[in-house]
Formats: sequence, structure tokens, C-alpha cells
Amino acid sequence: MHDAPTAPPFFEVVVGQRACRAFDDDRDVADETLAILLEAATHAPSAENRQPWVFVVIRDAETRARVGELTAQAWEDGARELSRRRLAEELFTEVDEGATGGISAAPVLVVVGADTDRCLDATVASSTFPAVQNLLLAAHALGLGSALTTLPTVHADELGAAIGLPETVVPVAVVPLGYPARPLGPPRREHFAGHTHRERFGQPW
Amino acid sequence: MHDAPTAPPFFEVVVGQRACRAFDDDRDVADETLAILLEAATHAPSAENRQPWVFVVIRDAETRARVGELTAQAWEDGARELSRRRLAEELFTEVDEGATGGISAAPVLVVVGADTDRCLDATVASSTFPAVQNLLLAAHALGLGSALTTLPTVHADELGAAIGLPETVVPVAVVPLGYPARPLGPPRREHFAGHTHRERFGQPW
Repeated sequence: MHDAPTAPPFFEVVVGQRACRAFDDDRDVADETLAILLEAATHAPSAENRQPWVFVVIRDAETRARVGELTAQAWEDGARELSRRRLAEELFTEVDEGATGGISAAPVLVVVGADTDRCLDATVASSTFPAVQNLLLAAHALGLGSALTTLPTVHADELGAAIGLPETVVPVAVVPLGYPARPLGPPRREHFAGHTHRERFGQPW
Repeated sequence: MHDAPTAPPFFEVVVGQRACRAFDDDRDVADETLAILLEAATHAPSAENRQPWVFVVIRDAETRARVGELTAQAWEDGARELSRRRLAEELFTEVDEGATGGISAAPVLVVVGADTDRCLDATVASSTFPAVQNLLLAAHALGLGSALTTLPTVHADELGAAIGLPETVVPVAVVPLGYPARPLGPPRREHFAGHTHRERFGQPW
């Protein structure tokens, strides 16, 4: 790291990272901070080490509003009804507020894409989501809030048009970044043992 | 973390993590160590926080050999020729050795899958690769070697049959784990600025 910042211990960062969907309007994110996050992101693995990741860092209010519109549109076109049936009320309300305004109100949006001149269609996801995760963890390590959102990529053509992506670059995620509007609680996760099998599926850990 | 282990500082872990494709035959990985890695993995984000991840931890030599066969088959059926044209010789040799035996010789293989009863097809990747990345980072933090491989999932049906996956669980990656056979150099990565754009694609960071 060119400029090693103070950060909590590794495992504290990993188990504390969680989604933030409401940001402090009065606190911007410095370029120097974004540089550290992007350096972390680009240290993720990728198929054949081809590093197909593309990051477009948006601060412009109009562009952020456009991404917000696309997010709200995808949400209202169907995702909201799917989620309403699937989610507990508290989480639904939080996600609903994020999708209809909270996320695009973050001072910075990072659109993460994959350059398909550098990877196969089959390796787009495995060569970009690990980089997104490094970005989220690094953000948390520096006290920033963030979230992994894919809703705006439902309208990939419109999203690409809003930020001038060439046809060879596929958007895979949008990460809002900013300081949290309020303290975030710990992530809610099921114990790993319920998801883990020994030797064969169905044999308990 | 139920058992916070000593680990290097966060950013040191992130920028040092890299693929390992040759493992020390004489050193096994303790269950307690795997538990820490899996706990880290299950703290990743997932769409709607549905946590669709499934982990099958394989130590059995016969099953590992079967996964190795499927990897070698996918490699020899086409991936090798694609890679030979795309990769520098040194990396090609390393990947070739991994695909034809090195990876399945790791003492532990973790098959990571997604339970499609818990997520939409469209969110399988965004809800599992972040967990895989947490697993890789945690492994590196504890001195283990690992790699993100997707080749064996080309033969998803055969892979599923080898470990008894139900039809609702889609394998997305196989992560070999073990202590490195030899010290690993730093990861080779391009500077983030070459992958980053300001406001619109094409405007330099």
C-alpha cells in the first residue's frame, strides 16, 4: 500500500462489514481515500490474472441522480414486489429507502464493470465481484459506509449511456460510498455451520 | 470472531493475497482454522441478505482426485489452448501445473455453491463471489495458500454428483486450501489508475 492507513485488525474488518444505505450529506470522500479503496479492489484475483475491472467514479450530482432513477425503476418494475414477499419488514423498509433515493444520495458512486476484451463472458462475475468485495472491506476499514448493489445494472444499456461505457464494458455493480448517516449495527448473519457440509452435501459440519 | 487469531494488518492482507497452486503435502489444515475461514466467508454481503452460500469441505482423497479429473478435463477440453494464447509463459506453466494436478493435491478443497431456493439466478454470482473473496483473504491472513478456481464448475453436473449436491444447489467455485509448498511472491497487478475513470468512461483518474 503506497500509503498504509490505520485500520482495525483484519478479522474485525471482515466480520463488521455490512451494507449502508443512508449517508451523511455533509461529509465528502477525499480522492486520496478513494485511491486506497481502488488499490485494494485491484488486488483481487481474476481469471488468468487479466484484471478486467473498470471503475467509473461518479461525484456529479446529475449523473448520480440518473443512476438513482435507473435503480428506482428496476426496483419499481418488479424487484420491490419480489422483495416485499421475501424480506422481513425492517430490512424491506431499509432496502426500499435505499433503492428509492438513499443510495444515489451517497456523495460518490462507483460503477464497477468488466472489460470483455480482457475476459470471457463466463469469467465476468468471478473476475469482478472479488474486487467489489475488496472495495467494500477497504471502505469499512476506513470508516466509510458502502453497499453492493446490482439493481441499476438491470438497465445496463441506460447505465452505460449515462457514463459513456463502450459496448465492450459490461456494468456488474454500483457501489455507493460515503460516511454513514448514523452508526450501523453489526451484520445479521446465520452461523456458518448451517451452510457447511463435510465431504458430501447433507453431512453436517 | 469467536476466536480472534493473530493476523497481519488489514491492508497488508488485502494487497498480499494471491493465488497458490502448489501445496505442502505434509501439513494439514485444522478444522478450527477452516471454521475461522468459513465464518469470514459468511460475513460477506448477499442480495437481500439471503446468504445462499453452500460450502462442501472435502478432505477425502478420492473425492479430491475426482474434482481434479474434472478440472483437468475442462482444462484440456479447450481452456488450455485459450490460455496458451493469452498468458505469459511463466503464468501459463503455473496455471497448467495447477489445473493438471496441483490444485487437487491441496489437503482441503472447498466447493462453494449457491442454493437457488434462496436466491434468483441473476443474483447467484453477486451473492457468492464476495464470500469466496472473504475466504481467500482469511486464508492468506492465517498463512494458508488458496486460489479461486472455476474450471471444475464447467462440469457442474459431474461435480455435483461427486459431492451429492441437490439440483437446487449450483456450484460456482472450488477453493483449494493448504500451506504453500514454497514462499509466494507478491501478486502482479496493474496500477488502479489505469482502470479508473472520472465521471465518465475515458476521462482519466
